Amino acid sequence: MRIFILGVDGYLGWPLARYLGARGHEVAGCDLFLRRKWVEEMGSQSATPIRTMEERLVAFKENFGRELIFKEGDLRDYDFILQFFKFFQPEAIVHLGEVPSAPYSMIDVHHCVFTQTNNIASTLNILYAMKEVCPQAHLVKLGTMGEYGTPNIDIPEGFFTIEYRGRTDTLPFPRQAGSWYHQTKVHDSHNIMFACKIWGLRSTDIMQGVVFGTRINEMGDGDDDRLLTRFDFDQCFGTVLNRYCAQAVIGHPLSPYGAGQQKRGFLPLRDSIQCLTIAINNPPQEGEYRVFNQFEEVYSVTQLAQKVKKVGDEIGLNVDISNLENPRIEKEEHYYNPDHRHLLDLGYKPTHDVEQELRTILEDLLKYRSRIEEKKEALIPDVRWDGTRRKSRFLTEVRR
Amino acid sequence: MRIFILGVDGYLGWPLARYLGARGHEVAGCDLFLRRKWVEEMGSQSATPIRTMEERLVAFKENFGRELIFKEGDLRDYDFILQFFKFFQPEAIVHLGEVPSAPYSMIDVHHCVFTQTNNIASTLNILYAMKEVCPQAHLVKLGTMGEYGTPNIDIPEGFFTIEYRGRTDTLPFPRQAGSWYHQTKVHDSHNIMFACKIWGLRSTDIMQGVVFGTRINEMGDGDDDRLLTRFDFDQCFGTVLNRYCAQAVIGHPLSPYGAGQQKRGFLPLRDSIQCLTIAINNPPQEGEYRVFNQFEEVYSVTQLAQKVKKVGDEIGLNVDISNLENPRIEKEEHYYNPDHRHLLDLGYKPTHDVEQELRTILEDLLKYRSRIEEKKEALIPDVRWDGTRRKSRFLTEVRR
Repeated sequence: MRIFILGVDGYLGWPLARYLGARGHEVAGCDLFLRRKWVEEMGSQSATPIRTMEERLVAFKENFGRELIFKEGDLRDYDFILQFFKFFQPEAIVHLGEVPSAPYSMIDVHHCVFTQTNNIASTLNILYAMKEVCPQAHLVKLGTMGEYGTPNIDIPEGFFTIEYRGRTDTLPFPRQAGSWYHQTKVHDSHNIMFACKIWGLRSTDIMQGVVFGTRINEMGDGDDDRLLTRFDFDQCFGTVLNRYCAQAVIGHPLSPYGAGQQKRGFLPLRDSIQCLTIAINNPPQEGEYRVFNQFEEVYSVTQLAQKVKKVGDEIGLNVDISNLENPRIEKEEHYYNPDHRHLLDLGYKPTHDVEQELRTILEDLLKYRSRIEEKKEALIPDVRWDGTRRKSRFLTEVRR
Repeated sequence: MRIFILGVDGYLGWPLARYLGARGHEVAGCDLFLRRKWVEEMGSQSATPIRTMEERLVAFKENFGRELIFKEGDLRDYDFILQFFKFFQPEAIVHLGEVPSAPYSMIDVHHCVFTQTNNIASTLNILYAMKEVCPQAHLVKLGTMGEYGTPNIDIPEGFFTIEYRGRTDTLPFPRQAGSWYHQTKVHDSHNIMFACKIWGLRSTDIMQGVVFGTRINEMGDGDDDRLLTRFDFDQCFGTVLNRYCAQAVIGHPLSPYGAGQQKRGFLPLRDSIQCLTIAINNPPQEGEYRVFNQFEEVYSVTQLAQKVKKVGDEIGLNVDISNLENPRIEKEEHYYNPDHRHLLDLGYKPTHDVEQELRTILEDLLKYRSRIEEKKEALIPDVRWDGTRRKSRFLTEVRR
């Protein structure tokens, strides 16, 4: 299949390209390398020493015996997307090319407006280019479980059938996102649903949980360092479990925010890539807009800290847990029961061994310990949801 | 009260300024005059010969004995809003400063992306400037009933309490907007709700129905032509009932789209201004985000055509009705039962005499008949929801 990956230089985009390349697909991709710049802006770097795209492309060809067709470009530039689609004629389009960070979007008005206009304009441009060039192609779009927020009822996959005042309808499940970034994914969801309705496009909108992991154990993975994906641990681009792992290897306490009872859906990187591939291999009908809740299991952020401590202690790291003032405004205790049947029904086999996964991450990161140590200031958040900037303090007492 | 109107040169903004000015409020406003340019871009003009802002400001002062403080500026420019708020210290902010047209947003990718990024960035800038300068001020934001679409259940005012799988929660009512423009209002609603939640801002989000009318019978209204508001009749900026009236006065058939059974909430311009003022006079609590469904009554677009025909025939206009191919993709027959209690509870007195209102509009427009005649090409739509451009043909048979 001809598969186009927007944001192919990223944490998910690069391993996805490798995974698909190893399976004989024709892969093209684009990137503007903004993620590399943003992480620098946050005073940090990828724990894994990732290569330039030039080196990555050479390694890709050597490992998989085929080219990855790559162009640098901006998704806000309609003509760039249009011409690339015309050239490549994609059958599936995986859209991972957005600003992906909640705290980054909360820094100030400029980061907020940039995140929102960038993400929305990119997705609109892609929809129009699909309509123009490849209306039969399948758009696999990365959204987030964070679109739903934490309602006091079960979370279905995108839509639910309800009775209200004696009548019944099937409607989009209400969204209550918790940052400007998360809001962009809500906006995208509404826009994509509309494009499918009026133009007959087909799309899978992935409400993804929090991803963690260093590898997908794909061909070349671990053997060829040039194929490593990035691993961020700073307050903006590091996800919570990856941050814990980075903390553990440098002897920094793991730092759940606030009471630490926030529950989220989590999944290993290898599961994310597996799920995206399942979505690609099982396209929806013409005009269909479908939503997959993509995660392996729900944990509280404290449960995960305890797992990292257990595994870290086993390999001699001597791990502490110390809660931080929560820089976010969010519920710290809440009901959380999201569905996640669609991918399982299509054959998703969850890894189901978080501790083994954590052991792999910690062992991988120990090799790059000094790179984390160098930028450890980036681990403690100072971007606050109230619009100010101040480093969070460790809490002496944790509300429960 | 110090009231700031964003988009004060517009169809609603200008009469609102007059209405508030006549009641002794301090009014400031800004505009970039884009509406004037867009209507020109559509090959049209306001049926009423509106004056320049310079002339309007002079007339305002002569009629109401006070200045309207005006600055030209772009709401996408954060510093412009910030400085103006700092100078004026608004207590209420009425945000009418967005691209307001569904067909305009559907012209092509560039109009789509412009509409979405312009509207979203403007509202985000306003929220940040409020937080910075006047967090106690009340944001009255113009949304649209079109945010809800046409679900098969009753439409509450913004939120509803539902039971789902044995648990209960109060959630935002799902949005299913029918154009890129309507989607921007959905995006804004989500963004404003979030700002109220995290920053304690207060906002009334107005889900407004379709407005019609030439006047508000305010002091000076009709006596001083310099105070006239604009009246658009082109396919993009003319609302359906105003378009019918413009058609009636030049002997052009009234043209419901498709089967003509689309139902919407409607209200006269004078009621819109009354309702906005009620909202201003009754601010919500700190941190409260509330939604008003603002319309007088629900009609089908065919019922309204019949009313215009009746009134037009009475004053000797000899009006025909001839349905047009629907350029939009929308349900042409559907359930529609939206609530609208909140404004009535706060004292809104609906005009409740559509025929008298139509008579006034037709009499006003007869004076400007030649201005409509000149641009009558703009009455027939060619912007189609399928992304092409082709003039709609009259239907010989109407599906019912």
